[in-house]
Amino acid sequence: MNKVLLTNATAKKLYKYAKTFKIFDYHCHLSVKEMYENKPYKNLTEIWLKGDHYKWRQMRTFGVAEELITGDASDYDKFYAYISMLETAVGNPLYLWSKLELEFYFGIKYPLTRTYAKRIWDKANKVIEETKFSPLSAIAMSNVDTVCTTEEIYCDLMYHRLLRENAAIKTKILPAFRGDRAINIDSPEFIKNIEKLGNVSNFVIRTLEDMEDALCKRLDAFKEQGAVTTDFAIEGLRYFRASREDADVIFRAALKGEVRDIDTYKNYMIRFLLGECYKRGFSVQLHIGAMRNNNTAMNLRLGADTGFDSISTEEYQTGLKLLLDDLNTSGILGKTIIFNLNPADNEYVGTLIGCFQGNEEGVKGKIQMGAAWWFNDTKNGILNHFKALSELSHFGSFLGMLTDSRSFISYTRHDYFRRLMCSYVGELVEKGEFVKDMGVLRKVVGEISYLNAKRYFAIHE
Amino acid sequence: MNKVLLTNATAKKLYKYAKTFKIFDYHCHLSVKEMYENKPYKNLTEIWLKGDHYKWRQMRTFGVAEELITGDASDYDKFYAYISMLETAVGNPLYLWSKLELEFYFGIKYPLTRTYAKRIWDKANKVIEETKFSPLSAIAMSNVDTVCTTEEIYCDLMYHRLLRENAAIKTKILPAFRGDRAINIDSPEFIKNIEKLGNVSNFVIRTLEDMEDALCKRLDAFKEQGAVTTDFAIEGLRYFRASREDADVIFRAALKGEVRDIDTYKNYMIRFLLGECYKRGFSVQLHIGAMRNNNTAMNLRLGADTGFDSISTEEYQTGLKLLLDDLNTSGILGKTIIFNLNPADNEYVGTLIGCFQGNEEGVKGKIQMGAAWWFNDTKNGILNHFKALSELSHFGSFLGMLTDSRSFISYTRHDYFRRLMCSYVGELVEKGEFVKDMGVLRKVVGEISYLNAKRYFAIHE
Amino acid sequence: MNKVLLTNATAKKLYKYAKTFKIFDYHCHLSVKEMYENKPYKNLTEIWLKGDHYKWRQMRTFGVAEELITGDASDYDKFYAYISMLETAVGNPLYLWSKLELEFYFGIKYPLTRTYAKRIWDKANKVIEETKFSPLSAIAMSNVDTVCTTEEIYCDLMYHRLLRENAAIKTKILPAFRGDRAINIDSPEFIKNIEKLGNVSNFVIRTLEDMEDALCKRLDAFKEQGAVTTDFAIEGLRYFRASREDADVIFRAALKGEVRDIDTYKNYMIRFLLGECYKRGFSVQLHIGAMRNNNTAMNLRLGADTGFDSISTEEYQTGLKLLLDDLNTSGILGKTIIFNLNPADNEYVGTLIGCFQGNEEGVKGKIQMGAAWWFNDTKNGILNHFKALSELSHFGSFLGMLTDSRSFISYTRHDYFRRLMCSYVGELVEKGEFVKDMGVLRKVVGEISYLNAKRYFAIHE
Repeated sequence: MNKVLLTNATAKKLYKYAKTFKIFDYHCHLSVKEMYENKPYKNLTEIWLKGDHYKWRQMRTFGVAEELITGDASDYDKFYAYISMLETAVGNPLYLWSKLELEFYFGIKYPLTRTYAKRIWDKANKVIEETKFSPLSAIAMSNVDTVCTTEEIYCDLMYHRLLRENAAIKTKILPAFRGDRAINIDSPEFIKNIEKLGNVSNFVIRTLEDMEDALCKRLDAFKEQGAVTTDFAIEGLRYFRASREDADVIFRAALKGEVRDIDTYKNYMIRFLLGECYKRGFSVQLHIGAMRNNNTAMNLRLGADTGFDSISTEEYQTGLKLLLDDLNTSGILGKTIIFNLNPADNEYVGTLIGCFQGNEEGVKGKIQMGAAWWFNDTKNGILNHFKALSELSHFGSFLGMLTDSRSFISYTRHDYFRRLMCSYVGELVEKGEFVKDMGVLRKVVGEISYLNAKRYFAIHE
Repeated sequence: MNKVLLTNATAKKLYKYAKTFKIFDYHCHLSVKEMYENKPYKNLTEIWLKGDHYKWRQMRTFGVAEELITGDASDYDKFYAYISMLETAVGNPLYLWSKLELEFYFGIKYPLTRTYAKRIWDKANKVIEETKFSPLSAIAMSNVDTVCTTEEIYCDLMYHRLLRENAAIKTKILPAFRGDRAINIDSPEFIKNIEKLGNVSNFVIRTLEDMEDALCKRLDAFKEQGAVTTDFAIEGLRYFRASREDADVIFRAALKGEVRDIDTYKNYMIRFLLGECYKRGFSVQLHIGAMRNNNTAMNLRLGADTGFDSISTEEYQTGLKLLLDDLNTSGILGKTIIFNLNPADNEYVGTLIGCFQGNEEGVKGKIQMGAAWWFNDTKNGILNHFKALSELSHFGSFLGMLTDSRSFISYTRHDYFRRLMCSYVGELVEKGEFVKDMGVLRKVVGEISYLNAKRYFAIHE
Repeated sequence: MNKVLLTNATAKKLYKYAKTFKIFDYHCHLSVKEMYENKPYKNLTEIWLKGDHYKWRQMRTFGVAEELITGDASDYDKFYAYISMLETAVGNPLYLWSKLELEFYFGIKYPLTRTYAKRIWDKANKVIEETKFSPLSAIAMSNVDTVCTTEEIYCDLMYHRLLRENAAIKTKILPAFRGDRAINIDSPEFIKNIEKLGNVSNFVIRTLEDMEDALCKRLDAFKEQGAVTTDFAIEGLRYFRASREDADVIFRAALKGEVRDIDTYKNYMIRFLLGECYKRGFSVQLHIGAMRNNNTAMNLRLGADTGFDSISTEEYQTGLKLLLDDLNTSGILGKTIIFNLNPADNEYVGTLIGCFQGNEEGVKGKIQMGAAWWFNDTKNGILNHFKALSELSHFGSFLGMLTDSRSFISYTRHDYFRRLMCSYVGELVEKGEFVKDMGVLRKVVGEISYLNAKRYFAIHE
């Protein structure tokens, strides 16, 4: 894998430098409970296939029975079914991701075909057994500076506290506040979620004022545990400035199970939370445009996050502009990272962010077009993002890669990303379209690999 | 043309293998009447330009007078006007398509410029005359295993029966059921279409129940003639589950010329037909997003299908998800191929299909993102489709190419497609992004060229 | 810069020919007042950074303080801040544009990094001083045949008349009529704009009939000054045929400050103006899909056109089809150039224009997909436009490049464009995908560089 994705000589030189940098993983779904418990893995299937719905989708597409995906089949049979699918998955990122993971964590260089399946299985499991390979060993091997784990509004942050006491962990494990459950008043779980928030806050939430108090306390608690960033999932957005009075009436009704004017509450609450994030110096990540759990039957059978999501085409574009403008006019627009899931919107987002960049603090890249997200975390998805970002905005200010993963061995995606980034820069240079000055280029590559994120997220400390 | 579109050495090797496969043309607009009558062609213009509105559009764009396109000009003048346009049509697929057609069917290798116009004309016509070149000779030359011709709901399938009696025809000519005219209750032709359906059914259609009976009889008749697939054109789609009672009321009113709640009827009928297709093991092709006959004046003058269509941007995306989910929840979601005309939706469709792939029968690639359709049947259109499909879904499960043509010599588009497909695969392999195992690669290429389609469409037999 | 963007040998040959052609700049925002006054520039900052909001946006993104952008900082400090941003703006068109400008106008070949900032500054200013570099010297150096400057409906064209008297100016400076202010009845400036139109017309506008008279007089006055083209900005478009009576009522109400049915008036007025353009042989440029002044706070502080615009996603697509069809049915659809700002619509527009190409006059490329506009005026933006245009329409009929700039030294963008165009053509030829006939290829390249535009815009003379 030494040369893969490195398409030119300049890229190869730059990559040598880029890979010296640590990882700043500002958004992921790793479980702090799993880190704390740190149980050694049983075998490759447990590490690789358990809970990885990226892989499940492609197995289903290939015609693999659910038994071999989420069912009771043996771990080897599941692994073999995965390799069988992979063998003809030309162009799918899973092929290279899987290669990079096997090579980096287990020293395996075999092609990923059925012919080599048994050898891969044996070798990986031998390493797993001999090294007692566990979540924390994966993180330790991965040269990770900081991990921001996504946590719900009612998270008590117990595991974050416990992990801090473990001096052996060199990586900073910080909670990131996920605000959705405060906003999604139309969720069937809303009342239950508010109860949970009440429980962790030690009081009953009855009014919007109570709700705001509880949320502010949580934000403070997150900050106390070192949090630097927050996260919001948005599908559609019909933004307008909503009044607190109206939102209060709707909120109280919702607690009684009555659904009223959803948009008014949502718009009030998102503005409230983003304002509170701004006050605390938290950057805000907006993940826009996922349509989740599209397959009702499988959702009933397997639950959420099992591989039945897609891009959404619901309207959010004008709403997003109005939200950013309202925050900006109110003086509460902080550092904001916009992730669009539909790549057809890359150019829209690439031009929109340029409208809200001015700031007295001199923050570089204050409003970001986040790295190619989820389904776009592929070679072409990433390159299309680079093109839109670099042509419409300022590449050197880019925050770079995050993992967005539930898997402890997906840090090789940073390697995948850095290779593509060095190749993109190198190609422009070799074609004479950018300055051939290795000092300047190393600076760009180092900043996008790590330094920009480090500075961006730490700036409020 | 030996090397054209073959961009690397691996591609050249794979192409040698790919071109050994027959063609399975699962969607086209060839006329079975023309096949049955099998009249020899008069000259190249009759084969090439008559009825080919792809070519007419570009001639109009180039400023050619309608006289030389659909008017009374001489056949040579029309041919010359076409070549004149082609001479500066850099990057248009018509250039290579025309080259491939002339070389394969008539042995002509001249550049397509005015300088060579007379020589091309003479040579092609000489071959046409000497070989009595006809629809069936084109098919015989083209190594076609199966052709599925698109037929309306009221088609009596007479020509399909007659063709079956001709033992000299080696190609299977099967009807494919096009359901639109049962659905488009707002068409000015609706009543007339229902009358035609009544005529072929030997009873008068007065109620929704009659309509359903008639349609089921047609589906059975298609199946008896070997049909394996069906086809539906969709522009916008606002799907919801509609009741049979409501649909019946609307249908009866429509037969009296009263237009009522169109969506309710359409949504009822599409679900009904897709369910009946499922029962019979018919796969379903959904052609989504064409806006037709946009030029009223030319539509009045020349009729439909004369080159005045475009991509539509009408909303269908969420409706499509709801339709697929409803069918799936009801246990009647069968093999489905989704063709999106707007390539800006490639990623939407590429992620949506992944949500409905699970199935107990182990069908590989049950829900397909159909090959780049119509305006996208170009080098970049096809490559963009490959990228979205392979990164978001599973390339090895892809059904591959179809012709979608009215022309008997457009089978060279399969050659065009296979070249691009081999180059796409070969490039990834040569860059180290996929396994360099010729056994595996030949398997992928053979399956996408022919074997996947053969298996997918035959599976119910 | 000799070879930059020229990616193959055929391109290099074609480019030598392409660069012999003059420039026909059919759309720009140059100031005729500045041309008439023709004041020598003070320094590079005045030429390069004053008023160039493309550059301001990226400086803000890089975290540069407003003081150094539009504020009171010294000209050298502003220049240095710009170079500092540019140094890490990998892939941004500003890098190559700036390189091309410095080399062509001032003979500067240094890399654009902080290391060379002082040398660049000194050398440019030396040339500026020694040559008394001014707007007209920039134009004279640029080999410009014709410039169409965009002028409001109430422009008195005084500077155009004055410039015509200056025999030293070899370039034709023609006004282009910008119709928006007649249409945008919902603008807060509407009444003021109508007053200005009344003033230049020498009567008070009270009714729609007055308005139409005034507009026709202006169109005639523009024509008298040599105008050949007009321009309309459209964000959303919900087109229907509106009645003159209704439009009159709405117009009179608007003059009293009452806002009524905006779409009816707008749709009436756009059809009226396009019909009047048709009568006068004016081509029509439709610039579709910009969302302007998105940042309210900065708009209040700095005014319009200061770098806070973006792509719009408001619906216009079906409206545009209906507008073109209505004009065509009415026999008043003239030469029309459609610029879409959202590149996600490239394929939509590329197919739509094909529906309205037929015309008795034999105009080549009557309905155009305009060159990649504004944010898309980048390497990938231009190449994506080429791909859509050439695959979906007819490349040889393309009108080619315009400047769309406020800067007198941005004519090097034609050079940038011609390089990309020659490379695009050359690559297809070298891959065997288009005819290798240098006579034919030179014709294509010459026509797109200059000859098509010359013919298209002059045809009514």
